[in-house]
Amino acid sequence: MTTKNSIGVLLSKDMHSQIGEHLQNLARACGHALHFVISPQQPGSLPSPAEQASIRLAYYSRDFLNGGTKTAPSPATSAFFDVVDAAPGVQWVQVCSAGVDMPQYQTTLQRPVRLTNSSGSNAQPVAQTATAAILAQARGFTYWLDAQSKGRWAPLAPAHVPRDLHAQTACIVGLGPIGREIGRLLKAVGFQTIGVRRSTEPVAHFDRVIQLEAIDSVLPDCDWLVLACPLTPETQGMLSASRLALLPRHAGVANIGRGELIDELALFRALDEERLRSAYLDVFSTEPLPSDSPLWTARNTWISPHNAAASLGNGERANDMFLRNFEHWLAGRSLDNESATERAGLPARGQVL
Amino acid sequence: MTTKNSIGVLLSKDMHSQIGEHLQNLARACGHALHFVISPQQPGSLPSPAEQASIRLAYYSRDFLNGGTKTAPSPATSAFFDVVDAAPGVQWVQVCSAGVDMPQYQTTLQRPVRLTNSSGSNAQPVAQTATAAILAQARGFTYWLDAQSKGRWAPLAPAHVPRDLHAQTACIVGLGPIGREIGRLLKAVGFQTIGVRRSTEPVAHFDRVIQLEAIDSVLPDCDWLVLACPLTPETQGMLSASRLALLPRHAGVANIGRGELIDELALFRALDEERLRSAYLDVFSTEPLPSDSPLWTARNTWISPHNAAASLGNGERANDMFLRNFEHWLAGRSLDNESATERAGLPARGQVL
Repeated sequence: MTTKNSIGVLLSKDMHSQIGEHLQNLARACGHALHFVISPQQPGSLPSPAEQASIRLAYYSRDFLNGGTKTAPSPATSAFFDVVDAAPGVQWVQVCSAGVDMPQYQTTLQRPVRLTNSSGSNAQPVAQTATAAILAQARGFTYWLDAQSKGRWAPLAPAHVPRDLHAQTACIVGLGPIGREIGRLLKAVGFQTIGVRRSTEPVAHFDRVIQLEAIDSVLPDCDWLVLACPLTPETQGMLSASRLALLPRHAGVANIGRGELIDELALFRALDEERLRSAYLDVFSTEPLPSDSPLWTARNTWISPHNAAASLGNGERANDMFLRNFEHWLAGRSLDNESATERAGLPARGQVL
Repeated sequence: MTTKNSIGVLLSKDMHSQIGEHLQNLARACGHALHFVISPQQPGSLPSPAEQASIRLAYYSRDFLNGGTKTAPSPATSAFFDVVDAAPGVQWVQVCSAGVDMPQYQTTLQRPVRLTNSSGSNAQPVAQTATAAILAQARGFTYWLDAQSKGRWAPLAPAHVPRDLHAQTACIVGLGPIGREIGRLLKAVGFQTIGVRRSTEPVAHFDRVIQLEAIDSVLPDCDWLVLACPLTPETQGMLSASRLALLPRHAGVANIGRGELIDELALFRALDEERLRSAYLDVFSTEPLPSDSPLWTARNTWISPHNAAASLGNGERANDMFLRNFEHWLAGRSLDNESATERAGLPARGQVL
């Protein structure tokens, strides 16, 4: 029920039943009362003006993602951001994803609203998926599964036998929680690891850390190029045709960042012309990947449908992050993962109501 | 050249050029002279009786394996063991494989000849391959690659989203160099690990170690059952229909031991009837796997053609082990990896000539 002095919280019906009571208890302990505004399932059915006006914070949880893609969001997602955009007093939106490049967030980013993401909540499964694909392709499964599909018993020909993994180098672009975890896993297997990020300070599990400007000098010695960075004006199109040409023919590419990081046509051609050995792609500039995309059948290419994160623990991890931030918010402390809004020069932290 | 007092060494032409000089230098440093008998490429062309009589040791190196399988050995393999069997004075045979169950070794095992294997020389690549398959299947690649082959953008349905890997348990049967390395890698990813071997002493990277007799009690809680043990009367058929039935429906099986460890028909049925989720098989009771085997197209099953070890460093690692053992042999020390012949009660160690 909406009361004059209670804080309106916009969330999904599922989240209301899962964490509503917990949120209420946390608020009460700080002398606040909450009321919940359940986000509509479909766009076009806004809550009452009084409810809209009461909303101070909104939680975009993982269940909103079901049935949608980056370019075709779920109806529940559109409905949620319609409500956020219509709520004049909203102060803080927490989103379950890692990036803040989704079109749905852009209106919020223009407003004096704090936007926090859940960077790190699905880092482990994404990193595990990328590592799985790299290991499997590095050991020979693109060949073996192809032979199996033809019913052929075909051990690797001498020319295709891979080098020992400890003699292979993986270059990982982006050392956020996902890139760091990929580095940790590949180092545990034995790979040489090079990290690419803004600062060149040493990072655990990486033999070297370089800046993006220096990447061209290491590409000729890379067996694996792994893109785990956010999409920014600096990274857009970073894996260009000319950079692809610097990689050795036996190299593989893995992309669990964003499709726009890669010149996708150039990537296809490099694979097709055997100038690149294999690829693992979870993300694409257009999602779903159009049915006529040549990437579907590109040579030695594995595709997961922006699904590398799929894991039963993600929802709970994202909720835990939201609950932690909610406590920070109540206590007037700074919020975790607020970097995107920091850059936008938004209101000072620590203001509740 | 055969001289009366020099030690005859049977090896391949390639090994003669790669390590012949090194062997000769090692022998000279101990006051011995070697002469080399090059193993014929084809059966039926034995060296001269004098050469045969001169052979004291024989090195079955990895290059003999090319073009052969367990049940259909390469011509060079047959030729090598024909010479070994015909050589009356052979004292020691070092083989490049890990097991001593190949039919070719059996005659040697009946003779008062020391047989050493190269257990561990390919442990890393085999363990990496098994880990790659387990990770890839655990994360969702059996689904994703199937959807990709149909050109379908199909994120995992909620019922198929995997549990977090740190909530999954892998049970690894056999804690030789391969099984221990699989345990190390899966533990680094975050899996719970149970090891199965004769002794229950703690082993690094394993949460528990149990004996084979106790395995039935842990199978219902296993997400992954990994067979990395040798084929012995005790392990033959150990993964029976009744044990398969103890595994949960979401479990996967990986076999990089020997095909005979598994009731293959029962495995196929469990996969086919969705009583088991997936399998990775490198070894089979008949190799090459017959073209009419239902395993080729078994549901969610990945096959590598007894090729999990393929890696460019194996030959060098096997050579290093042979060279180390050759030094031991010259010095009259005990040889590494001689356990199989120990059991057979063969002549005491440390006799050169």
